Amino acid sequence: MKNPIRTMLCLALLLATTQLSAAAKGKTMQEILDASTAADWRTPDPDNLLVMDIAGGRVLIELAPQFAPEHVGNIKTLAREGYWNGLSINRSHDNFVVQWGDPSEDPAKAKSIGTAKPKLPAEFALTGFDKSVFHPVKDREGWSKQAGFMHGFPAATDRKQAWMTHCYGALGAGRGNEADSSNGTELYVVTGQSPRQLDRNITVVGRVLQGMEYLSVLQRGTGPLGFYEKPEQRTPIKSIALASTLPENQRPQLEVFRTDTATFDELVESRRNRKDDWYLNKAGYIDLCNIPVPVRSKK
Amino acid sequence: MKNPIRTMLCLALLLATTQLSAAAKGKTMQEILDASTAADWRTPDPDNLLVMDIAGGRVLIELAPQFAPEHVGNIKTLAREGYWNGLSINRSHDNFVVQWGDPSEDPAKAKSIGTAKPKLPAEFALTGFDKSVFHPVKDREGWSKQAGFMHGFPAATDRKQAWMTHCYGALGAGRGNEADSSNGTELYVVTGQSPRQLDRNITVVGRVLQGMEYLSVLQRGTGPLGFYEKPEQRTPIKSIALASTLPENQRPQLEVFRTDTATFDELVESRRNRKDDWYLNKAGYIDLCNIPVPVRSKK
Repeated sequence: MKNPIRTMLCLALLLATTQLSAAAKGKTMQEILDASTAADWRTPDPDNLLVMDIAGGRVLIELAPQFAPEHVGNIKTLAREGYWNGLSINRSHDNFVVQWGDPSEDPAKAKSIGTAKPKLPAEFALTGFDKSVFHPVKDREGWSKQAGFMHGFPAATDRKQAWMTHCYGALGAGRGNEADSSNGTELYVVTGQSPRQLDRNITVVGRVLQGMEYLSVLQRGTGPLGFYEKPEQRTPIKSIALASTLPENQRPQLEVFRTDTATFDELVESRRNRKDDWYLNKAGYIDLCNIPVPVRSKK
Repeated sequence: MKNPIRTMLCLALLLATTQLSAAAKGKTMQEILDASTAADWRTPDPDNLLVMDIAGGRVLIELAPQFAPEHVGNIKTLAREGYWNGLSINRSHDNFVVQWGDPSEDPAKAKSIGTAKPKLPAEFALTGFDKSVFHPVKDREGWSKQAGFMHGFPAATDRKQAWMTHCYGALGAGRGNEADSSNGTELYVVTGQSPRQLDRNITVVGRVLQGMEYLSVLQRGTGPLGFYEKPEQRTPIKSIALASTLPENQRPQLEVFRTDTATFDELVESRRNRKDDWYLNKAGYIDLCNIPVPVRSKK
């Protein structure tokens, strides 16, 4: 007979288990991944993969030139020229974002942006996009007319425009009050409940694929907006480089689950109605930002 | 003329600002709080307020006996008898939960639960609740028929039942595979994107009012489900006590914004359509779990 305390310790919140009492229930996410084929996965282009090294570990970020070509172009230039190397993460706002860039308040001390462009157009949303590449999810949401995935990124559309959404791990380009005041030097990553009110207000440039746990644990800043009050509280950035510029044997080798396949739809369904016995009431629903997009080491 | 870098540093993501170019736009959240009266605030009952001390700082949690009387009763007994003192936070699962309790895997070494009940009924949802105390929000959501607030907590209803929702900061009682296998010794707090699929699957017992930033930054566990693999990675719990059992001068003095007033509706509206100039596209929507419930030091 199970000891209730032991039961709770070992079984509490069994959200990753693959218990299945009957095949009729459908597959769990793990079973879907186990049964997936090479065609269900894609390899991110190393020329769109940022490799960020901080003391805690390595963060891998996929850039989205399909959504923000001008910003991504500038970010690649900044990465190639080592702009962020030696700069720092200057902000950690609980349940919201971490943000990095040049902390210098004195323009005379600001780090040179090299050959990057000082000014870019706002790239909040795509107009005139190819609707066939927007892969909708089944469930409706209040933030947009239709949520789904596009080019592997969580996205939404009003059917005229499409944009990347502010889900956990989204990478965006900070701006001032003017729409076109971001140039990609100042970047933030969403670490809390999806702040979807930012959608179409700021240029989203990519998404963290791996290493969120090194950003999400950073001590929260106690200054306004979660900025650190003392320079020593900032997290130094060792380097941010494009994977394509690293020696071949140092490049990350990973694959991302495709979001435009029937297998992905099956995965979403497995999360809309969880298949393991622990769930006594199936939700019959999932929010766009609750849908996982699995990542694995390349075989 | 503004330097663009400085602009980005100082103005990037100006989400807490109170810029307002015209009164016609409506008040910002800060302006609503500044104009609030004593009647817009409530003082949590110190007999329902857990004071949790860990190395990082103090976490204040409001219990919800209106939703889970049996569990809250047991948790109060456990707190009064010092059950968690010297135990630890044993799990930190990125974008999901932290969890604490007795890490002992050996039933013979499990800590005594004293006079607390070893077994409780599941309290996933209230049936036959007083519908007049459910304060609905304007926006529809996919997880339930109606979202809103009840007794100061984010909640949802299918009009027959009502339940507390798994928003950021929700406190729940871990369970095994049986619905009635939780007794309140093993507790978790939501630290990521609202895992609403847990609603009506587990007993929610309260919500963190203050100090989330001490739980949300805990290093993620690298074992299955985010449990720590080594005992030394756990965060010791100095104590968890009921505020009502602390000496009067050591009790937290705080007030929580009421969620059943016209002023609260005004606050929600200020977040549905942000009032400051930074937002160029107003969302016209807000998710239940994005609605802030302000807390302040008691005047």
